[in-house]
Amino acid sequence: MGASTGQGYEIARKSREIVRELISEDISSLGPAEVAIVERIVHSTADPEYARITEFSQGFVDEALRSLRSSGGILTDIEMVRAGISHPSRCYIREPAVRELAEKRDITRAAASMEYAASQGFRGIVVIGNAPTALMKVIELTLEGLMDARAVIGVPVGFVGAAESKEALRGTEIPHMITRGPKGGTPVAVAAANALIALSKDKEV
Amino acid sequence: MGASTGQGYEIARKSREIVRELISEDISSLGPAEVAIVERIVHSTADPEYARITEFSQGFVDEALRSLRSSGGILTDIEMVRAGISHPSRCYIREPAVRELAEKRDITRAAASMEYAASQGFRGIVVIGNAPTALMKVIELTLEGLMDARAVIGVPVGFVGAAESKEALRGTEIPHMITRGPKGGTPVAVAAANALIALSKDKEV
Repeated sequence: MGASTGQGYEIARKSREIVRELISEDISSLGPAEVAIVERIVHSTADPEYARITEFSQGFVDEALRSLRSSGGILTDIEMVRAGISHPSRCYIREPAVRELAEKRDITRAAASMEYAASQGFRGIVVIGNAPTALMKVIELTLEGLMDARAVIGVPVGFVGAAESKEALRGTEIPHMITRGPKGGTPVAVAAANALIALSKDKEV
Repeated sequence: MGASTGQGYEIARKSREIVRELISEDISSLGPAEVAIVERIVHSTADPEYARITEFSQGFVDEALRSLRSSGGILTDIEMVRAGISHPSRCYIREPAVRELAEKRDITRAAASMEYAASQGFRGIVVIGNAPTALMKVIELTLEGLMDARAVIGVPVGFVGAAESKEALRGTEIPHMITRGPKGGTPVAVAAANALIALSKDKEV
């Protein structure tokens, strides 16, 4: 799990054992790839509640892996999420064009960055770790056929709009993973994305 | 809180109200700057438990603000933490010299990056959002007089070593902020650092 030295591997191994003990009852209905994703989330957050609130749509793992293996991209809402993903990823929130679009239309920069990505022809996995407004925009653009989101990791965090945006995604046919309620955030988004990347290379996550 | 549009500010305002309601009982012993930091952490994680597990040493806020206002640096353990901080910050984990040092001595890269920073004459606030081994190294170097850590945000996350490393920091005279137990991580570290940066400019956090 990102470890590159003997000591690092040993810590990762012990953590995995503890995580498995903590969450074993909550993951009995999940497939092996989904279990690997949830384990990595709980490892990254030290918060076993994620085993109870993480949900996957039918086909999420298959679609996400197919996208990664066919050179699909990864798009994130914020730079902090992008910085954690072990694979080239895009984030447009700091683009001047995105800032202008956000100001002109009085939407958040995170939402504007999703419009911008769609206009640039993005295809692949969208990873939303922070902004509910970005997730709502991804749903809107995808349902309108304006964005080619093959799978969405929708784990925005916060007390205003996050839970609602995830319920909205849950109500669609878009292949997705969510965390129900207000919790989520960068480490959850990054853990899920990195688990998928490892799975796409048939590596142990 | 990072918002730059009307919609963004409105979300931040509503979130602040909800956070204040949720944590009001847990913060009665804290000063106003400490309250601002804890509010920002709970806003960023949507996890009110942080109001109960976040602890400050005497003088932490004063030392951290003095360091920021006298051009002290900010050093992070991982790039993901650095990416979230709204101030120029340093992270050495990807330096080839750090990788070599880690391999040679079989320590983690995060720990080796702290030794490297000390050897480069780092002075300022150390922000550890991930690696217990990095925090242990900061304590060791600072107590030996080899690192000029003016204040430490010590919030590594995980089931192996994180709680212990934070208790070790808690037992020192180094000005510090910690989250007791296994929880912590990037959003906690970033929220605390960004709250201090805003406070150092006398801005509302």
